[in-house]
Amino acid sequence: MIQTPSAELDLTSDVAHLTAVLLDIESVSGDERGIADAIERALRPLAHLEVVRDGDCVMARTSLGRSERVILAGHIDTVPLPSTAGSRGTVPSVWDGEVLFGRGATDMKGGVAVQLALASALTEPTRDITYVFYDHEEVEASLSGLGRVADSHPDWLVADFAVLLEPTDGTVEGGCNGTARFEVRTAGKASHSARAWMGVNAIHGAAEVLVRLRDHEPATVHVDGLDYRESLNAVKIVGGTAGNVIPDSAVIEVNYRFAPDKGPEQAEEYVRQLLEGFDVRRTDVAAGARPGLQHPAAAAFVAAVGADPKPKYGWTDVARFSALGIPAVNFGPGDALLAHTDDEHVHADAVRACLRALVTWLS
Amino acid sequence: MIQTPSAELDLTSDVAHLTAVLLDIESVSGDERGIADAIERALRPLAHLEVVRDGDCVMARTSLGRSERVILAGHIDTVPLPSTAGSRGTVPSVWDGEVLFGRGATDMKGGVAVQLALASALTEPTRDITYVFYDHEEVEASLSGLGRVADSHPDWLVADFAVLLEPTDGTVEGGCNGTARFEVRTAGKASHSARAWMGVNAIHGAAEVLVRLRDHEPATVHVDGLDYRESLNAVKIVGGTAGNVIPDSAVIEVNYRFAPDKGPEQAEEYVRQLLEGFDVRRTDVAAGARPGLQHPAAAAFVAAVGADPKPKYGWTDVARFSALGIPAVNFGPGDALLAHTDDEHVHADAVRACLRALVTWLS
Repeated sequence: MIQTPSAELDLTSDVAHLTAVLLDIESVSGDERGIADAIERALRPLAHLEVVRDGDCVMARTSLGRSERVILAGHIDTVPLPSTAGSRGTVPSVWDGEVLFGRGATDMKGGVAVQLALASALTEPTRDITYVFYDHEEVEASLSGLGRVADSHPDWLVADFAVLLEPTDGTVEGGCNGTARFEVRTAGKASHSARAWMGVNAIHGAAEVLVRLRDHEPATVHVDGLDYRESLNAVKIVGGTAGNVIPDSAVIEVNYRFAPDKGPEQAEEYVRQLLEGFDVRRTDVAAGARPGLQHPAAAAFVAAVGADPKPKYGWTDVARFSALGIPAVNFGPGDALLAHTDDEHVHADAVRACLRALVTWLS
Repeated sequence: MIQTPSAELDLTSDVAHLTAVLLDIESVSGDERGIADAIERALRPLAHLEVVRDGDCVMARTSLGRSERVILAGHIDTVPLPSTAGSRGTVPSVWDGEVLFGRGATDMKGGVAVQLALASALTEPTRDITYVFYDHEEVEASLSGLGRVADSHPDWLVADFAVLLEPTDGTVEGGCNGTARFEVRTAGKASHSARAWMGVNAIHGAAEVLVRLRDHEPATVHVDGLDYRESLNAVKIVGGTAGNVIPDSAVIEVNYRFAPDKGPEQAEEYVRQLLEGFDVRRTDVAAGARPGLQHPAAAAFVAAVGADPKPKYGWTDVARFSALGIPAVNFGPGDALLAHTDDEHVHADAVRACLRALVTWLS
């Protein structure tokens, strides 16, 4: 898709329609420049905001001398477009009555639209606000735009409390599961497939790995009053070299989403024990975050928006704020269960309700 | 590797050294032009031979009006070069004393060297001889150069008996196993890997396929006095799309080497029964060949070279000659167990002994 450089965002329009405009700017991870440009162009003219840009991360803040500062953060990238022909969860977006379909509809351009509407509308908020629009959230943690600006602009990531506008269906979600990736390798010995007894089949050697993963029962772990459901899965597999050669290697990529009662080392140990006897290498990890709802700022936010807190299953950058010492929660429009599916969608009223709740809290 | 167009073959040199020269001309399937050119240039000047070329297949024959005609056939392609660093079974070839290492050393440039030496030396053989040097043997049966010339030059593939110079370690091998390939597909449902319970994991669904293949005990089947050992293996696997998505598909490629008591349909039925409940599609098949050693021409050849016949495990074009109504055996230098390995090699004396045996039979 070719981005027309003249695509402009009207931050004063209906926030649901603003969401649709954002959906129409394709921004799969690594290709965020177009949407970052549009956001930067929309924010620069606002006299009450100071704006900086770092790569494809755009940040803006008020400086009214309020006693509290909050961060409102959202990622502007999406997972790849659906591969299923005829899917509505793609680019450009499609309205079906009041329901908006498109890649990013739930994860998380509805939340980004709310951030932008607030940035425009709240010229004199009761708390100082730092808005963070960042790139590369849907890929390896090491690429994260939020991680990058935490290093390059540490003074911008100082606050009493943060709200990440990831989809929570309008409720408040505390903490998040961690995520770790592993490569499990099986080795064999190549031979001609007509004389298989001369070789050792590495793909057959992977059968036991898949059986253990298939038969594993993921736990649900109670942490600070909330129940965190775990997931442990093979997400990729590749093996073999030719149709007439006994394969001498196979590689299984495993993703473990672990409850915030565990740190990265405990999560790794858990996977190593499950796959005892196999060659397991950790390739990526991001710690989870305990709910943190006992913090006064978090409790005040929960009271203001009036919803019972729930656990967050997916890893979000709440964990990164947690590591920076900033209590944070997830609160955003859309059903997280639709994220990354071919049927991703959000109801217009959900986006509007999220905006109203935050306006109330910050006015 | 760039082939120098001036590379010439000296067919009167020691046949072991001629093998080394052939090894130094890289000829992985699909890239046989250089070696076919060299063979054609070497044969054209020989006045006792009629020569034709079809693609990268070169054929030559005597027409002395003998009462019997035999075909001596060999493929000029090889499997891909070894991927292991430091392997000696690559291009160019390496001598270690009297042992020659290189891709194709056993499968089957030693046999091709013997064919070429015979073509040059036997100006008045006791049987008329048709020499066939063909391309694309190490890939799908549908690409075979021998199959192509059987269609385009059927008059060249008429004979009383055929010898295929595939490696048999100097013995005579009768018949061959058949080979069939299958794709086994498992389907799932994509979801975010942090909420795996919303999806269905197609890689976990493949565990049972791999278990059945791993636990399967291949049969050894007695056919016309010889024992054919079968092989049934996963040779490739691929599945999954991204590190944070529950995979919705996996594909396992299966290769079944089946004894010549079975036809392609019976082989397919066998695999379908083993993998009952899974989506199995046959993608390629080549029938095997029963030993055929009861045929008078075959028996005479066995008596002349003086070796006990054995079964051939790997599929060879003996099966294609069998389908054309020409009894055929395998007889060539080198240990077939080394074929396609990173350590492929042949002893100089094995090549020389093969040449002597055929000279004796045909003079």
